[in-house]
This record gives sequence, structure tokens and C-alpha cells, in this order.
Amino acid sequence: MKDVAARAGVGLKTVSRVVNEEPGVTPDTVARVQSAIDALGFRRNDSARLLRTRRTASVGLVLEDLADPFYGALSRAVEDVARAHGALLFTGSSAENPRREQELVLAFCARRVDGLVVVPAGDDHRYLTPEIDAGVATVFVDRPAGRIDADVVLTDNAGGTRTGVAHLIAHGHRRIGFIGDQPGIHTAGERLRGYREAMADAGLPVRPDWYAMGPTTPERVRAALATMLSGPEPVTALFAGNNRVTVTAVRVLSGRPQPVALVGFDDFELADLLDPPVTVVAQDPAGLGRNAAQLLFRRLDGATSEEPSRVELPARLIARGSGEIPPAY
Amino acid sequence: MKDVAARAGVGLKTVSRVVNEEPGVTPDTVARVQSAIDALGFRRNDSARLLRTRRTASVGLVLEDLADPFYGALSRAVEDVARAHGALLFTGSSAENPRREQELVLAFCARRVDGLVVVPAGDDHRYLTPEIDAGVATVFVDRPAGRIDADVVLTDNAGGTRTGVAHLIAHGHRRIGFIGDQPGIHTAGERLRGYREAMADAGLPVRPDWYAMGPTTPERVRAALATMLSGPEPVTALFAGNNRVTVTAVRVLSGRPQPVALVGFDDFELADLLDPPVTVVAQDPAGLGRNAAQLLFRRLDGATSEEPSRVELPARLIARGSGEIPPAY
Repeated sequence: MKDVAARAGVGLKTVSRVVNEEPGVTPDTVARVQSAIDALGFRRNDSARLLRTRRTASVGLVLEDLADPFYGALSRAVEDVARAHGALLFTGSSAENPRREQELVLAFCARRVDGLVVVPAGDDHRYLTPEIDAGVATVFVDRPAGRIDADVVLTDNAGGTRTGVAHLIAHGHRRIGFIGDQPGIHTAGERLRGYREAMADAGLPVRPDWYAMGPTTPERVRAALATMLSGPEPVTALFAGNNRVTVTAVRVLSGRPQPVALVGFDDFELADLLDPPVTVVAQDPAGLGRNAAQLLFRRLDGATSEEPSRVELPARLIARGSGEIPPAY
Repeated sequence: MKDVAARAGVGLKTVSRVVNEEPGVTPDTVARVQSAIDALGFRRNDSARLLRTRRTASVGLVLEDLADPFYGALSRAVEDVARAHGALLFTGSSAENPRREQELVLAFCARRVDGLVVVPAGDDHRYLTPEIDAGVATVFVDRPAGRIDADVVLTDNAGGTRTGVAHLIAHGHRRIGFIGDQPGIHTAGERLRGYREAMADAGLPVRPDWYAMGPTTPERVRAALATMLSGPEPVTALFAGNNRVTVTAVRVLSGRPQPVALVGFDDFELADLLDPPVTVVAQDPAGLGRNAAQLLFRRLDGATSEEPSRVELPARLIARGSGEIPPAY
């Protein structure tokens, strides 16, 4: 950090602000500090850090699936913050399998990573207590840890879903379906709660065949949607619980003669070019990754209180067309 | 491997076949071997491997950008093969910066990875020779190494582009534009070559304002397309050199009164639901990652000749509508 400050001709405080992406630094200064960091490179940071702190300058990131664009954006943001701190990144996909999550986490710990950023698949993280006690900084992201107190960075899933469902209600819908991910997944449960709350707030009933939770495979989503659209009280609108569900719902609904309104949780590329353009409740995957990694490095710098932090990012409704379709009957 | 074979009740040869995804094993046996691998877990494999070979059971993957869905799919495939071999994965994004590529590669080597899978940003990899000589298995993917002989897994970029441009010619186009990535990038150069060859094969000229190479930012693609569509001999069709270009081209062309035919290199999600559905030349990012990682582990097992291998995967035309639009004038 001192070398960077000297090379960029700024104070240590400024370097720290740039690295932590804090406000109050002019773009010109940011560029100067970045280029000093680039010029001095990883390896030098690395060796210095290792000598000074006996750290390994590496971080482990466990997420659900590297091939999912949501986690791609989250990973890249974690990587960028790690890089600014001279740390390398291990990544691994749990595929929603709690045992695989645990294997990856413990394998990363065996390599003596300084810290972990974890999108948990499981709901019991007591296995991590010895590692955290031994000094491995750990921040959970997207979903909270289970049965331990730990830092977490989340989206306001229930609030975002309430907003999206209330939007459909405001456009005249009374029979609204919800298709979500597996009920054991925290985000899926929170979004279902938001759906129920929005319906209750409007004094609307929720029939048992109007919501379906389970794997987000195309087959399962197709079957759930077919049920909702064919019962005695078919839905006139759907809230899709994540981008995998939305993509399949778009396919199914585009083939139907009668329009069905659709709001999806998570934005996705080209949503605005579909017919109709897809209304979404957008979260910020890069923001989740960035906040989690910044919290992790603040922990490693000892710059935070002992109490676990909980950061909650808002979700934002983007009205584009599909969510503003009135009820067909 | 012995433990896995015993637990699954199969021979060592069968375990090796499953791990290397070779044919000749029934799905039932694959499932049995996989579940034995899962049950025995990473850590055990890890320690055994370390004891036996003094390896670190880790692999470094350097790519352009973790947040790009193409590299997300490639990464996940590398991770899956690494996992089957009990190895963990370091990942890093070069952001098309040769110095950052080198920093990442050398940082991974400093952590003593057993092997590297590299999507090169630079065109001179002589800096890697000492590492390769020291035993770090290295496979390049998507683009070849520069100034050293090394293993590489590629898509047939020129051939795929020739097919796509010939398809436009077969639908009556004579003035066809090409927008590609920066000319220093191997894949970009190969695709430009394929475009030129297809035009030459059909006896068609290529005007200098019909092709444009450079960063694939939306602004640059918009400007290049505007030039091609407004000159004295405007193009009636466009070949988009990668999925970033295609996405921007779809946006620009959807706002025009006169249809322009479009074929894009790289498939992308929802391409079939756009209006018109987008015709693409699809490569197989997971296949690139899988082949590269399998080659890497064959090298680590000493199961290959000394000669560097070159694997070329085909690209496949998927006609969906946008590439079959006739010339507007």
C-alpha cells in the first residue's frame, strides 16, 4: 500500500479509499492509484503480504454454478475486489448440494485461504466454526448462514417480490401464480413469503395450486405453469421466482393465444427486446459480490467490530411491458 | 482411485473411463462410480494425491471475463473435470490485458498449481517456458499460445464464419458487413479471415467500410453498423463476430424500418425468442473447457506423447430466421 501511495503520489488513506471503492476520490486519482497498483503487480503485493501477515493472499468463493450468469457477475465482482487487495481467488460450484459446499469450503481451508465468500447450499454451517475461530474470515452472500452467526450480504428478496406482486395487483390481477425454486433455499422461501404478504395485503386469497416450489428445470416449470393455467380458477398473471423460471415462462407464455402477465425476479440480458418486453424485479449480483468481498477484506484488516454484519441491498422494479398486461378474463 | 473402484464394485480401468468421460461405460455404472467419488469426497483424494505425487491438486484457469456467459460455461466445464480428478480451481480474469494475464499465470505458478488452462490475452508466452519446463502442465483454450509450442483446444473459427457468411450469400446477399473484436485477438482474426474467404469464394468484393474490428462495446458496434448501413453501397446483411456484437446489433437492427439479415458467431440464451429469431454459428464453450481440462489431466498422468496437441472443435450453423431474410434492396 505504501509503495502504491508513493508511486501514485497520494496518501495511504486515498489508496485505501480507492481499493475499497469508497466515495470522495476524483476519477483522475482513482486512475492514478489503479495504474500504480497495476504497475507494482500482484506478486510484489503477494510476497509483502505473506511476509507481513503470514497470510496466503487467497480467498475461496463457493457458489451454486459458475455457468449461471447471475453468479458469473457476482464472481467477477469478488475477483475485482480480491485483486485490488492482491489476493487470488479459488472458485467452486456446489450445484445446490450441501455436502459439496462443505467439501469445497474445507478443501479451501486446507489450502489455508485467508477468507471465504460463500453462497450457501446447506442450512447448517456449524462445521465452519473451528475454521472461523482459527481466523478464516467468512462472509455469506445471497443467502445467510445456518445455525451460526456470520456476516451476510443479501438482497431484500421478500420486499422485492412484494413490490413485483403489488405491481400486478395494481394492474387489475386477482389470481396470480408464483413459481419458485426449491423451498429449502433461503431466497426461494423469502420470495414466497413476499408473494403471500402482497396477496394478503390486498385481501386476496392464495389457492394451493397457484404456487409451486421445486427445481427450476424447464420440465418442472412447464408442468407447474400448465397446472396454474388450466385449473377451475386459472391465474391471469405469474410471478417467476428467479431468472431460470422466467426464461422458461417466457417460452411457454409466448406460445399461448391469451396473454398472461409476467413479472420475474432477476433481470437478464435482452429482456427488453422480447415481445412483450419482460418486467422484472432486478437485484444487483455485482453489488452482492462487491459488498461481500469488501466486508471480507475489512474483517481481514481488523477494521470492523466483532459483531456479525448484515447488509441488505434493495431490489428494483423495472416495468417493461409483460407486467402491465391487464387480466385476460 | 482404488477406493473408488472398490466402493463402486468396478475395476480401476472403469473408474478411469468415467473420470475421463470416455465412452463404453453404461449410465448405471457411471452413476455408481460418481456416487462413490462423491461419498469418498475431495479431501481424501487430495491428501492421497499430495502424498503420492507431491502435487498440490490445484489448477489455475485464466480467462477473459468471468462475467461473460461464454466463459462461465467454459469455466464450469473445467471445474467439473478438475473436480473429477480431485483438484481445486483458481480462476482469474485477464480483461484482455496481456500483463494481467501474465501476472495471474505467474501468481498461480507461485502457488504451485499442477497445471494451467489459459485463454490467452497476449501473443507472447515465452515467459511460461521456465514454468512448463519445471513441470506445470499448460493447455491453451479458445486461442493458441504465442511464440511457444503448447497444447491448444480451439473452435474452427474461420470455418464456422465461412459457413455463416456463405449462408447469407445463399440467401441472395452480395453486400455483407462484418463487425469483429480487436484484430490482435486470434479468434477475431480467424473469423475475419473466414468472412474474406467466403466473399472471395463467391466472387464478391469486400469494401473497406464493410468490415470493422475493435472493442465490442455497444458504442463502437453502433457506430460501425451506422457506417455500414449509410455509405454509398450499404450492406444488406451483417455477420456479427461474437455474442457481444450480436446483442448490440439486435438492438440496433430492431429499431430500423428496413430489415437487415443477421448471423452471429456464438449462440446465446433466448436467441430463438427474439423477433426475428437470431441465426447463429454456435460454438461449444463447455466442450472447449472440457476438452482442455481432459487434455491437461492426461498430460499430468503422463498418458500422452511429448508433442503438443491441437484439438479443433467444429462450429454449427443454427438457422432461426434473422439469417434467412432476403436483401431489402
